[in-house]
Amino acid sequence: MADYTKMWSELGLDLEGHNALLSILGSAYGDIFLSQKNRPEGMKYFDFVMSEVHGLRIQELMEAKAQRRIVVGSYCVFVPEELILAVDGVSVGLCAGAEFNFEGAEEVLPRNTCALIKSAFGFKLGKVCPYLEASDVVVGENTCDGKKKSYEILAPMVKDLYVMDLPQMKTDMGRTFLKEEYRRFMAKLERVSGKKITPESLKMGIEIVNAKRAAVKRLAAIRAADPAPISGLDALLVNQVFFYDDPVRFTHSVNQLCDELEERVKNGIGVSAPETTRVLVSGCPMAVPNWKLPMLIESSNAVIVGEESCVGERGVRWLTESKDGTVEDLLDAITARYFSIDCAVFTPNPSRVEYVKEMAKKLNAQGVIHYSLQFCQPYIVESGPVEKELEHASIPTLRLETDYSQEDAGQLKTRIEAFIERLEKK
Amino acid sequence: MADYTKMWSELGLDLEGHNALLSILGSAYGDIFLSQKNRPEGMKYFDFVMSEVHGLRIQELMEAKAQRRIVVGSYCVFVPEELILAVDGVSVGLCAGAEFNFEGAEEVLPRNTCALIKSAFGFKLGKVCPYLEASDVVVGENTCDGKKKSYEILAPMVKDLYVMDLPQMKTDMGRTFLKEEYRRFMAKLERVSGKKITPESLKMGIEIVNAKRAAVKRLAAIRAADPAPISGLDALLVNQVFFYDDPVRFTHSVNQLCDELEERVKNGIGVSAPETTRVLVSGCPMAVPNWKLPMLIESSNAVIVGEESCVGERGVRWLTESKDGTVEDLLDAITARYFSIDCAVFTPNPSRVEYVKEMAKKLNAQGVIHYSLQFCQPYIVESGPVEKELEHASIPTLRLETDYSQEDAGQLKTRIEAFIERLEKK
Repeated sequence: MADYTKMWSELGLDLEGHNALLSILGSAYGDIFLSQKNRPEGMKYFDFVMSEVHGLRIQELMEAKAQRRIVVGSYCVFVPEELILAVDGVSVGLCAGAEFNFEGAEEVLPRNTCALIKSAFGFKLGKVCPYLEASDVVVGENTCDGKKKSYEILAPMVKDLYVMDLPQMKTDMGRTFLKEEYRRFMAKLERVSGKKITPESLKMGIEIVNAKRAAVKRLAAIRAADPAPISGLDALLVNQVFFYDDPVRFTHSVNQLCDELEERVKNGIGVSAPETTRVLVSGCPMAVPNWKLPMLIESSNAVIVGEESCVGERGVRWLTESKDGTVEDLLDAITARYFSIDCAVFTPNPSRVEYVKEMAKKLNAQGVIHYSLQFCQPYIVESGPVEKELEHASIPTLRLETDYSQEDAGQLKTRIEAFIERLEKK
Repeated sequence: MADYTKMWSELGLDLEGHNALLSILGSAYGDIFLSQKNRPEGMKYFDFVMSEVHGLRIQELMEAKAQRRIVVGSYCVFVPEELILAVDGVSVGLCAGAEFNFEGAEEVLPRNTCALIKSAFGFKLGKVCPYLEASDVVVGENTCDGKKKSYEILAPMVKDLYVMDLPQMKTDMGRTFLKEEYRRFMAKLERVSGKKITPESLKMGIEIVNAKRAAVKRLAAIRAADPAPISGLDALLVNQVFFYDDPVRFTHSVNQLCDELEERVKNGIGVSAPETTRVLVSGCPMAVPNWKLPMLIESSNAVIVGEESCVGERGVRWLTESKDGTVEDLLDAITARYFSIDCAVFTPNPSRVEYVKEMAKKLNAQGVIHYSLQFCQPYIVESGPVEKELEHASIPTLRLETDYSQEDAGQLKTRIEAFIERLEKK
């Protein structure tokens, strides 16, 4: 690996803390990912991306910035990458998946804050997220209370925080509100980048993102096969890299992986034995390197065949209609696309559970593990009715609530194993 | 007290649970309120109201309903009583202040839900809130995540749940959104009541509510005097009864109480000795019978001189401009009034802390006790910066987080006493 010390230093990272982080990350990656049996060849690309996630990729961002392209960092799938690409910007997800410097985070945030938010603050205060430090604009968003209110505390810590205002109901009023917000965000992007969004640039942005989503949807569909041609861990990793990598290169790599997986399916090759217990995971997003739950599940005689999550199906399910027309027409298409997202911050949110049922059926999952981050009220409150409805539809469901620490791993493992036994007996 | 058994029974109350509740409530009221020394005569009206809060007042609601007036129950100060009065409806606050049947509530809600929400569900599932059972429409609202998502669970349990959609930012977009929501609510009220809102009926509604708010503001201002002419407990009670009583009668009674208190101030009469330590309480609302914190404070050699809370200043601070004009003009005035409310669900919310400072100064408070309900993310996240800013302005601040149980009373009392000692030394 090249020496990126100078770059990290110029970005203002805390080199000691950052080295410690990379070293833990690298060894966790080895233990969790590289130790898997019978991995597809196509995962080598993603192994490489992960090994350079704070290196080569950041160097690319710095090169883009040198060419006067803006870098826009965000924490949520409601931030349209299409618009960022339309000003020739680079869209990146920001670090929020590791238990790093929670002591620091808890000095400014309540202890009863979800791990994802604490992690974002831990990274910022510990100066170890190069994506955040490289961002010209950081986009927050009014999704849950925890994020909404903590962006007020983040604001003075970052260069340029833009808070995206979001509706809470799927009404006409809500849709109009979302469109006006995206119009405001467009203006912001134009201002910061000094570039004007045209029908052509926006259409190009839409097509690049559509291709990326279509590739991940293709991957998702292949996982319906038995034996599963790819582990849930590796598929999650692809969904995580979705937020960091160059979109065109990423799309190409996912499609290559899919070619290989389709070949595997044809030949009955899988990562686990045929008829291994199949589980669908549903709920809160898992940001890199939050691999805790899938690791526990897949080391318990089961394979994960889908993720009903923002880092997963909820992030890629809908494409944006690409059409000839004015910027206004395309903005309508983008609004329609993002307004479909069935995040639990919406009320009511009945389509989500319907889609969980549909996914379980399509992917031949025998049960659902509902994953909530502790203190994530939208998903936790919704998980009660979701469980009831799934069990009513004869889909066994296990509700788990956890954070990023390893303290409860043993207890979770026991519950997961008992659940998988229940599925095996079915 | 009259026998209301038949009425309660017809409302579908669980008589046994309800009797148990009333008995606990009555004895708590005696211990906490009637034991106070040197209470104003004017509090006798409020004692009477409280003794009949599930009796005579419910009978009045039933009589109103018999005259085809609708009863609208709600949980939040964003629900405009002006509009309800404009269709000749009766606006009532719904039960959410007591730890009743939390076991039942926790069967449908996460344990990590704030006590106010659990209480609303405990009352509903235990069938002991006659206000809820008498309501023709129950109004929920998208304020915090906990309330927003739990109304989905409440919906099938009540006759007609209307969820009020609210903005989250004080932008032009947010204001337009609020106005459109209030227009939608008006249409709902007209539909349910069968009455049309006219400029005259709306202006009358505005004036009735303005008079009620003005009376409570008058009471609030009188509390600047030393010695304090009324206890914080009694002043809170007035603010609580605000949500239940007939507005015209309530206004008259508050003004009568104020006449007496002004007389007291003139004569230097107070409920505690001159120079008793003066505290401002700021934060989450305290619904009847949540008297836990004020009781602990006022039994610790201090007097509460103001409540920066929805049940308190935040509920009465702004009046609605009453003017001649169309319904549209009046709707603009109502929107402007409610859009001013500086609830922590808004982001950012800088005017709130400014106003806490202003209140502390106006009311000669020596310190602020910030009260958050456990798991209330908006107020808890905001309390960190609020404390920092108040201490920076040399206003000593104590942040407390609690629920409705008495388990932590000893621990809270110790912290409150230490804080009051700090204020005494100042």
